[in-house]
Amino acid sequence: MSAKQRPWYTYERIHRFLLGNPIPSSKALHERLSPKLGLPVFAADNLSSISYATEAILAILILGGLGAMRMQIWVSGAIVLLIGIIAYTYQQTIRAYPKGGGSYIVTSENIGPRVGLLAGSALMVDYVLTVAVSIAASATALTSAFPSLHPHLVPISIVGIALVAWANLRGVRESGALFAIPTYGFLVGIFTMLAFGFWRGIEQGVPEHQMVNGQDAYHAAGSVTLFLLLRAFSAGCTALTGIEAVADGVPAFKPPEAKNAILVLRWMVVLLAAMLLGVGLLVQFLPNVSLLPVENPEHRTLISQIAAFSFGGTHNFGFYLIAFMTAAILMLATNTAFADFPRLSSFMARDGFLPRALARQGDRLVFHNGILLLAIAAAVLVWHFKGELDLLLPLYAVSVFLAFTLSQLGMIAHWRRLKAPQGWQRRLAVNVVGAIICGAVMLVILFTKFYEGAWIIAVLLVILYTAFSAIKARYAFITRQLAPSSGLAPAPTSHRSLLMVSRVHKGVIKALEYARLLDPNCLAVHVTLNEKALPDVQRDWKKYGKEVPLVVLSSPYRSLIEPVLDYVDGLLEADPHLAITVIVPEAISSKPHHKLLHDNVASQLKRHLLSRPNVVVSTVRYLLD
Amino acid sequence: MSAKQRPWYTYERIHRFLLGNPIPSSKALHERLSPKLGLPVFAADNLSSISYATEAILAILILGGLGAMRMQIWVSGAIVLLIGIIAYTYQQTIRAYPKGGGSYIVTSENIGPRVGLLAGSALMVDYVLTVAVSIAASATALTSAFPSLHPHLVPISIVGIALVAWANLRGVRESGALFAIPTYGFLVGIFTMLAFGFWRGIEQGVPEHQMVNGQDAYHAAGSVTLFLLLRAFSAGCTALTGIEAVADGVPAFKPPEAKNAILVLRWMVVLLAAMLLGVGLLVQFLPNVSLLPVENPEHRTLISQIAAFSFGGTHNFGFYLIAFMTAAILMLATNTAFADFPRLSSFMARDGFLPRALARQGDRLVFHNGILLLAIAAAVLVWHFKGELDLLLPLYAVSVFLAFTLSQLGMIAHWRRLKAPQGWQRRLAVNVVGAIICGAVMLVILFTKFYEGAWIIAVLLVILYTAFSAIKARYAFITRQLAPSSGLAPAPTSHRSLLMVSRVHKGVIKALEYARLLDPNCLAVHVTLNEKALPDVQRDWKKYGKEVPLVVLSSPYRSLIEPVLDYVDGLLEADPHLAITVIVPEAISSKPHHKLLHDNVASQLKRHLLSRPNVVVSTVRYLLD
Repeated sequence: MSAKQRPWYTYERIHRFLLGNPIPSSKALHERLSPKLGLPVFAADNLSSISYATEAILAILILGGLGAMRMQIWVSGAIVLLIGIIAYTYQQTIRAYPKGGGSYIVTSENIGPRVGLLAGSALMVDYVLTVAVSIAASATALTSAFPSLHPHLVPISIVGIALVAWANLRGVRESGALFAIPTYGFLVGIFTMLAFGFWRGIEQGVPEHQMVNGQDAYHAAGSVTLFLLLRAFSAGCTALTGIEAVADGVPAFKPPEAKNAILVLRWMVVLLAAMLLGVGLLVQFLPNVSLLPVENPEHRTLISQIAAFSFGGTHNFGFYLIAFMTAAILMLATNTAFADFPRLSSFMARDGFLPRALARQGDRLVFHNGILLLAIAAAVLVWHFKGELDLLLPLYAVSVFLAFTLSQLGMIAHWRRLKAPQGWQRRLAVNVVGAIICGAVMLVILFTKFYEGAWIIAVLLVILYTAFSAIKARYAFITRQLAPSSGLAPAPTSHRSLLMVSRVHKGVIKALEYARLLDPNCLAVHVTLNEKALPDVQRDWKKYGKEVPLVVLSSPYRSLIEPVLDYVDGLLEADPHLAITVIVPEAISSKPHHKLLHDNVASQLKRHLLSRPNVVVSTVRYLLD
Repeated sequence: MSAKQRPWYTYERIHRFLLGNPIPSSKALHERLSPKLGLPVFAADNLSSISYATEAILAILILGGLGAMRMQIWVSGAIVLLIGIIAYTYQQTIRAYPKGGGSYIVTSENIGPRVGLLAGSALMVDYVLTVAVSIAASATALTSAFPSLHPHLVPISIVGIALVAWANLRGVRESGALFAIPTYGFLVGIFTMLAFGFWRGIEQGVPEHQMVNGQDAYHAAGSVTLFLLLRAFSAGCTALTGIEAVADGVPAFKPPEAKNAILVLRWMVVLLAAMLLGVGLLVQFLPNVSLLPVENPEHRTLISQIAAFSFGGTHNFGFYLIAFMTAAILMLATNTAFADFPRLSSFMARDGFLPRALARQGDRLVFHNGILLLAIAAAVLVWHFKGELDLLLPLYAVSVFLAFTLSQLGMIAHWRRLKAPQGWQRRLAVNVVGAIICGAVMLVILFTKFYEGAWIIAVLLVILYTAFSAIKARYAFITRQLAPSSGLAPAPTSHRSLLMVSRVHKGVIKALEYARLLDPNCLAVHVTLNEKALPDVQRDWKKYGKEVPLVVLSSPYRSLIEPVLDYVDGLLEADPHLAITVIVPEAISSKPHHKLLHDNVASQLKRHLLSRPNVVVSTVRYLLD
């Protein structure tokens, strides 16, 4: 029978068309990246965060009055300082884990699987949020350029997620070339925008009356409490997401891997800091600023307002370039999560914390179940929050800083355990400082964003941690229970085949041949649902039944199932060492919709018989043309 | 193992709780009805139609101007005349078919299965529309009393359908007592309303200025074309739906069945005619009338406007009584369809026009699949038309009159075939007149309502007729193809068991015992997805594998399936007369969510192997606690 005749061929062909042909395991080679190509691959997630971080800070400060907005540049400065510290500590991780030092691995190895699980849970939540936030920011960047698209934020975002998921299901490699254009394009765009902006800004001078959300901010009062400042700082911490990606991906670099990775990390941090400070300063030159979610009829992001200012309007090449490049780099940012989440979940599945299906690689060498899970979770999140960035952002950053803190603690344990190389005490000290700072920032974020959404993440982490522990316990229990050394139940010593006969046709006769091969003393069983048809069945069986006895069971409740159950139970009672195969002939057809025309007795029997230990239900299929 | 330990027990318990315990076939006795109880059971569908028929007539006439509304009473008169004629012809059907003479049976028996199929299709469409229209009218009757509920028309209707479907799945008998209260309550309510209304109307006199939709209709012009009159007549023909229910249900009456059924038919017709004329006359006394779908801010039905007039306001017992009784009798009207549709579809399935699953009675003695199908189809219709009666009504009545016409043609064939009893020529003549009238009305309805919605029904009928014919042809083809007399394929002469081994545990060892019982020379097959685990598997197999050879298959594409397919194909090539059983150990657990933790290899193998004629995939399940 040729492939074209196989009923599953259509399914197979669609599958191949969408996902491409299988790739053998031997091809599982990673493209090694130079620092120039490594920057776009690993920095897209982090660098793209400037598209929302400054705006998020301002959106909080404005709650203290328009005057409070002047604090923005100081908050941005604090964030830049924090970025520097964390990047510095991550250099140590890169050196210590040249094979890749994500939080899950560092904590599992150095502290223990329970703490590792917490880090893993935090990272999983973080990846889902990265996809949701980045795709929503990407869609918002687009709708800033085309405000008429704004009502379609959710469908645009979900199509975006589907596209990235599909590319990853096909097994897009983290290809440097693919990433280089949007990332470098974005960088060139932003820095050009900053240059034009400062040129124009210095020419015009700081405006006397900056209008914020339509009100004059110049003489406006502002009351900046410490809590408000901390909230603004927490909002700005979204700029730090993605900073650990380089440490995760050290083996992807060309040798010397660690050195190249550190180079990329440094460049990333410098670029991010420059953009954050640049945007933070330039905002002060804008004569008009509108902030989400308050008054902003065109739903323009701050970046696109800056672009409009710098390039002198919303209908020029520069303005559209910024919009498209921002949208593109944010799509790439989701791709980073799509590369890391399935890998992380495969590690966790391998360690027994997640269903084994997540550890299985598909025929395109990708962990397809992890990709689908991430896409669905992120889509649900985007849909629930209507694609609005200002609703999604408060959820962000808690889990990131939890993972950072645990990673630092892991490194502390690492140094204390190894007591090497030379100078480990200094490295230990760096990680202690890092752990204290990350832990403090995490607590600040948790408390200041608690009611805005951080509580959801806290609850979610508890649920995930509990669920993953339960899965681990379940697998351990199964392994113990199934260990052959723990003693085996008595095995059946004889076997009987029962052939289900509804009426006599070729399919039944084919199944009869099979039943006789399994057991020459097999029995045929007919359940009478229709008394009138019984004589026909008996007559035909006499003719075609090859002397196999036909057992007739009556069915007072018109069920096919109950009489068979009772009969099987009777046989098992008479001989407890009997194994029974119930053989059900089943029609199959090349057209799926024909299924509706046929009964599905086998699966019902299977469901009802599955508690009988030595009973197997087999379907013998016969093909219909 | 007790019932409580069975994994399917939870499902079973929910099933029992919702639907009740099984009922044995021997209990399939029908309650026999006296005429007093038969009237509510069989007339609810028909009598309830006065809740929308008069309003439907007026809604058409008003298109010709307010003055055109004066023609309403003449149209109502014509409808009453038509009711009388059709009822008269149905008396003959009742006498000729004391075992029940629905259109499907009468036409199939007397003309042939193809015409019968057309009648059956028309009736199926009609039942779906009956449920949709009646439930929408029921919900509208409720929201007329409580206008604030009007935005929730669709959910109310769908809950209503679900309730009636659920009652029917439990196997509600067409219990006279259940039907008597709403039906007689409705009749008492309507006639009391008419009495109060005429009292008040005669006291006040016909109002000089009747305001219709806020405009003075007294001096308004109206241009009544013949087409408009025919359209209004078609709209009124919705009052004739359900008239055939008595003829369908003759055997449900106490003996003498035919006589009692005719008595009920006559009473039904007299009551309907009286209500139609009564409502039609009383409308003229109303000082204010609002008509759907034009200006009617409170969405009150005409009946509830009459009730408000008769009882002097909308906050009194009489007004609410009419609302609730109308809603209740309309719910019962859907119940008639829920009783008849599954019965009809079981006849049609028995004759091979519908999937066999529709002919199967559940353990509560009801045709559960038919009930579900009807509920879903009606719910989709209600949802699509937003629960608005004025959008649903134009679809109605075409299929009813098609069924009427075919039934009359069937009776004509019946008399010509039998040429008995005495005086059959007179009966033939009655049915010829009936056929001409019904056919003419059908054409009038089809043409006048064509663009409003009748075209949908026409298209649907063509689709259903074609689909049902295709199903019949398919079943016939299968029966021919599977006839054992047509020659059998060569049977396999030997058998080999293959046991799939992923790792060695108790479940696998249990399956091994089974595999050896089926075939003492069975083989174990291991697909290496993880090279590192292979030595462990080989070592364990040596220890527990009872000397059964372990075949190791490598898998370059990490698929469990492809290597097995290739191996099986190799065995089949070597010996074409071989039957192969692939045995897959499968974990089962009492908790359904544990399923996610286990792979589902068997169903994948099954799908891929189903085109191999002599290969059977068997799962040997092992229980986990």
